[in-house]
Amino acid sequence: MRVEILSIGTELLLGEIANTDARDISLMLAELGMSTLYHTVVGDNPERVRDALRTALSRVDIVITTGGLGPTYDDLTKEMCAEVFGLPLELHEPSLELIRERFRGFGRPMTSNNVKQAYLPRGCTVFCNDWGTAPGCAIEKDGRYLLMLPGPPKECVPMFRVCAMPYLAALEHSAIHSDWIRLFGIGESEMESRLHKLMEHAVNPSVAPYAKEGECLVRVTSRDVTEDAAALRNAPVVRDVCAQLGDFVYGVNVDSLEQVVVRRFTDAHLTLCCAESCTGGLLSARITDIPGASAVFLGSAVTYSNAAKTALLGVSPDTLAAHGAVSAETAREMAVGVRTRFSADVGISITGIAGPASDDTKKPVGLVYIALAHADGVDVREFHFSGSRERIRRASASNALDMLRRLP
Amino acid sequence: MRVEILSIGTELLLGEIANTDARDISLMLAELGMSTLYHTVVGDNPERVRDALRTALSRVDIVITTGGLGPTYDDLTKEMCAEVFGLPLELHEPSLELIRERFRGFGRPMTSNNVKQAYLPRGCTVFCNDWGTAPGCAIEKDGRYLLMLPGPPKECVPMFRVCAMPYLAALEHSAIHSDWIRLFGIGESEMESRLHKLMEHAVNPSVAPYAKEGECLVRVTSRDVTEDAAALRNAPVVRDVCAQLGDFVYGVNVDSLEQVVVRRFTDAHLTLCCAESCTGGLLSARITDIPGASAVFLGSAVTYSNAAKTALLGVSPDTLAAHGAVSAETAREMAVGVRTRFSADVGISITGIAGPASDDTKKPVGLVYIALAHADGVDVREFHFSGSRERIRRASASNALDMLRRLP
Repeated sequence: MRVEILSIGTELLLGEIANTDARDISLMLAELGMSTLYHTVVGDNPERVRDALRTALSRVDIVITTGGLGPTYDDLTKEMCAEVFGLPLELHEPSLELIRERFRGFGRPMTSNNVKQAYLPRGCTVFCNDWGTAPGCAIEKDGRYLLMLPGPPKECVPMFRVCAMPYLAALEHSAIHSDWIRLFGIGESEMESRLHKLMEHAVNPSVAPYAKEGECLVRVTSRDVTEDAAALRNAPVVRDVCAQLGDFVYGVNVDSLEQVVVRRFTDAHLTLCCAESCTGGLLSARITDIPGASAVFLGSAVTYSNAAKTALLGVSPDTLAAHGAVSAETAREMAVGVRTRFSADVGISITGIAGPASDDTKKPVGLVYIALAHADGVDVREFHFSGSRERIRRASASNALDMLRRLP
Repeated sequence: MRVEILSIGTELLLGEIANTDARDISLMLAELGMSTLYHTVVGDNPERVRDALRTALSRVDIVITTGGLGPTYDDLTKEMCAEVFGLPLELHEPSLELIRERFRGFGRPMTSNNVKQAYLPRGCTVFCNDWGTAPGCAIEKDGRYLLMLPGPPKECVPMFRVCAMPYLAALEHSAIHSDWIRLFGIGESEMESRLHKLMEHAVNPSVAPYAKEGECLVRVTSRDVTEDAAALRNAPVVRDVCAQLGDFVYGVNVDSLEQVVVRRFTDAHLTLCCAESCTGGLLSARITDIPGASAVFLGSAVTYSNAAKTALLGVSPDTLAAHGAVSAETAREMAVGVRTRFSADVGISITGIAGPASDDTKKPVGLVYIALAHADGVDVREFHFSGSRERIRRASASNALDMLRRLP
């Protein structure tokens, strides 16, 4: 079925925020095997909302609106949709009760304008909002479907996944289940060539590769009568994809490399510390972004200057003089030094040139050494990254995380 | 004048990227005093591109397209625009020469399909692409304007600012100049109430307040016959805005708090180091994100565990036992300790509870202490932040940067 996403909100047209809702919903529609043909954004203007709705309904099967469900006078999505569909808005008592309950949770009185949020088109399917106050809903007429979702991404995206996806899957008398396989260290074309045979005949489940922010991922989606049946149908293909991609796979249905590292160290009862030069704290910041990191992460020494490398980590001034701060030798002494200082099971170090200019050694921008000190010795790797300062710093931290998750 | 932004690219409809071009162009159109009425996204499909163009030209004065200017067969924006305007595409030799030159710079041969990028509608105004290969352009017919820009944000956004903004300003026989005033520590409503009188009668220059990511900013824009004249017209209003907002202003036409801190320390020949607990390296990562940070930043100790606070920073075990890791006393000893260890002019420390759970002391999530150790003593501040782990960590690092830029 063909879909249009119609986002309603003047803040989008003023450039205050990007339309991430449309991106995230499109990605989930692709999981459902549905084609998004248009994204449209209009402001909080009754005539333009009405016209945009009519245009959308004339050219697709399913229209999904985001925004304009709130309590204020300029929130007018439901009013315009009800008008176009010829349906009255009626008070939906269970939704009103949920809004009241939410305000009790905030410890604030519910102002009367919030009642507006509980008025919904007669006969609609209600999408309960567990992430905010305004409920969403779906209406159908003459084989055209209209789904309304709130605008804030923290409400819109989970409501789409939890409420709208099963609703849309049911239109085709089925349920779906997706698994996401995450990869590091492999390029997009290498991934696609390894999966080529598997993808060629893959219909149900479908196999879709993606690349973003220096990582690759593969989505495997099955459709069946129930989600459990779809999950079962997915399982052997997920195994095949993982087998084709080997140890480039760092996890299935996980969030990030840092999450996998924290889990692995937690399960193995190992402690970790870092010594960072060119990344300047970025690796530590990514690890400590994971709740529960304190169980494994003891701390880091961010040693930007040579003096700090010696004072905090015990890097020998002779090593620095002979090989420079950006060298395998310095990386090795940093990793060993930080592991000793923190009395940790594992110490990892990064030293390199993030640019935009080189240091005074004429070593190239993008040259980075990463060393891993553990009970059995020290591993040092040399990298040559390209791109901006930000990209080199990010790639350095990601590769350090990759070395940590591959720890023997 | 009324504007529609029409973005062309199937990757947007697949949810691979968000439409940040539309956001960024909308923000720049607001600088010009122009109203964006619609954002539309369509895929690389000739019929839908043609229809979307016709619809856009029927409802606004200016249509701005992004994307579809590249060398491949599915890049069809120029072809469809030329068709709708009834103009032939002609080879533009200077553009072809620039594309050839760019490939010489890459050290790669130019494949023949790249010639397509140098074909432009007859009589158009060419926007030279200094950031990529595909030139942009503008055409006019019967008082309707159509501007075409490349899709990649790194090309689209600077081309809009450098080429399209002057073109659009000239349509109204004027040039514009904007200044951006950046603030920290003040809320959106307080900012607006302080600026109320100034904004009330502000037409040329216009004064527009914005809030984003925990910071506020004010744009002041003048229109005049030349950009220099517009800049002169802006100056007294910029001074008035700064006077109204006092020391909440951290800079005019700067990028970030961290940039201001690195500049201030560089100018004052002061060195800096950090001791981070709950922020786990985030403050250091933000400082070292600024090119040239190595002139002032010596390093950090990220001391997540109590043992590390003692071993690396010399925080007294008695202090930790009596007051806990999250206390004014521990923050003070961390700042003094790191300043001594790194032999720096200034040491700053952060210790707090970022959540989602508290530690075992029953102190509330969001409680954060920041201490600043300098030649004249130590300043300690207590904060109570709310929100997610990510938000508390970000607010902690931002407030530390704010204390650094306010250093006496």
